[in-house]
Amino acid sequence: MDLLNFVGVFAFAVSGGLVGVRRRFDIFGILVLALVTALGGGVVRDLLLGITPPSNLTNIPFLATAVVAGLITFRFSGSLDRVRRLILLADAAGLGAFAVAATLLAIRTGHPGVEAVLIGTITAIGGGIIRDMLAGTVPSVLTQDIYAAPALLGSLGTDLCVRFGLYNTLTLWLLVAFVFGMRVLALRFHWQAPKPRRLTRDEPDPPRPS
Amino acid sequence: MDLLNFVGVFAFAVSGGLVGVRRRFDIFGILVLALVTALGGGVVRDLLLGITPPSNLTNIPFLATAVVAGLITFRFSGSLDRVRRLILLADAAGLGAFAVAATLLAIRTGHPGVEAVLIGTITAIGGGIIRDMLAGTVPSVLTQDIYAAPALLGSLGTDLCVRFGLYNTLTLWLLVAFVFGMRVLALRFHWQAPKPRRLTRDEPDPPRPS
Amino acid sequence: MDLLNFVGVFAFAVSGGLVGVRRRFDIFGILVLALVTALGGGVVRDLLLGITPPSNLTNIPFLATAVVAGLITFRFSGSLDRVRRLILLADAAGLGAFAVAATLLAIRTGHPGVEAVLIGTITAIGGGIIRDMLAGTVPSVLTQDIYAAPALLGSLGTDLCVRFGLYNTLTLWLLVAFVFGMRVLALRFHWQAPKPRRLTRDEPDPPRPS
Repeated sequence: MDLLNFVGVFAFAVSGGLVGVRRRFDIFGILVLALVTALGGGVVRDLLLGITPPSNLTNIPFLATAVVAGLITFRFSGSLDRVRRLILLADAAGLGAFAVAATLLAIRTGHPGVEAVLIGTITAIGGGIIRDMLAGTVPSVLTQDIYAAPALLGSLGTDLCVRFGLYNTLTLWLLVAFVFGMRVLALRFHWQAPKPRRLTRDEPDPPRPS
Repeated sequence: MDLLNFVGVFAFAVSGGLVGVRRRFDIFGILVLALVTALGGGVVRDLLLGITPPSNLTNIPFLATAVVAGLITFRFSGSLDRVRRLILLADAAGLGAFAVAATLLAIRTGHPGVEAVLIGTITAIGGGIIRDMLAGTVPSVLTQDIYAAPALLGSLGTDLCVRFGLYNTLTLWLLVAFVFGMRVLALRFHWQAPKPRRLTRDEPDPPRPS
Repeated sequence: MDLLNFVGVFAFAVSGGLVGVRRRFDIFGILVLALVTALGGGVVRDLLLGITPPSNLTNIPFLATAVVAGLITFRFSGSLDRVRRLILLADAAGLGAFAVAATLLAIRTGHPGVEAVLIGTITAIGGGIIRDMLAGTVPSVLTQDIYAAPALLGSLGTDLCVRFGLYNTLTLWLLVAFVFGMRVLALRFHWQAPKPRRLTRDEPDPPRPS
């Protein structure tokens, strides 16, 4: 489970750092965004579970991982051709890792079932929501097709695996891969969830945030 | 008190869903916004009171109510002529229901007085703040005349009713109606709270967010 | 330490109120923004430390200080020539006061070291982040050169002072002055932290938020 969290921290730190790069923040702004994106979901998770102070604030390896990921992003971003695509890939990896890891933590601290599934989902989508709100854009979870759904299914799958004794290292990584894969496929093939019918004329269709 | 919370959850879920409809989010985005708006204020309330995990995350009836309200909003919004007005009405109903219900919960868990009044107010305005920040607009509580004031007065009234033994089903609903009514009247008659004097010329008057 | 917190509450309430004045919010919006900016960082601090309900919600002197600071800001802002500069100065004062005070509180409640430093930093930058996000702008901590760094150094200095027995009223205020001074000098002389190298052509340089 620790490895899972490392993957999530690294991936989300990269996604946060890249958003900072795109917005042309300076190195401190980029590091703050990398740290908050990587550790914010876990802080929310611990507050919801009543674990204080949140473990992420005392976890030197996680803090160091996020800082290093932020610095790598800062250093090499200039040579990256497709920053936006990389943000989405890193974000998808973090989504899968955190959904599974947070669901497991909730189960282990005595909150299986609906709670575990919701806390897993909230942790997975939380870091990205904080990242996007800080950067001044509407969170991906609201505008991008098929974002919360993979996290919810991954959390649900984790809870069911534990419940039916199917939990092991293999199923764990299969679940992470499932969330990542579903998200990436949704991006690649532009899966569209249904939209509301058009409003009447006095409410113009606002431009979709980029 | 449960009925009160159901009214608040339903009303805020509709207001959140309608904001999603206006922004042309897809069904998942609309459901996330409905859930967060309906349950977010209560999650903040429970975190402030030290109730973990927050009860809203385990309350299946509330979760189901918010999802159903979100789906109804999604389905029927196309035929609604005045979405913006409906958002404001649903929001006013939620404001009243949550101000009273959260103040009562704070009193019952041993925090009457200033704490109960502030927690009632924060819970009432919290869902709408989260909704507006997620949707990328400045929260109503800051831009709309007379928004926090009714919630504060409703919470204060609830605390006083309990203190002086006047608390019963009738006074309860009168308080909810008072908050709702004050908010709706403020909207209807464009009650204006005082604004700061104009700034000197080097600070242009920014456009009011719509 | 109480005096320190009063300074922070007053300074941040003024900075929050002034942001409201600039955005032309009405008096209620300005008071909400003053209260949230002044007390928000401390509420986050208490939630991270597991202190519920957060002490700021029961601290009548702090609440009154924030309201009075908000009213003063509202009343006299029209005659102020350089609102934007004042926001930055008040914000710098609050940054220093809260960084030191919150680090001390974390140490006293049994969380010295990394936790104390991080909680001090988060508390110091938290109020301003909430203020800017509510007002619809990207938080200063991300866009302004040298913002989180002084808070981090001030928190670190406080932790080291306590650890090595150098903590007294003099060192306390020196630390506050250090954070304030470093922040003001950074503003005055436009200290620049490094920025990422320019992106390739398909990602245009977005306009810097004002």
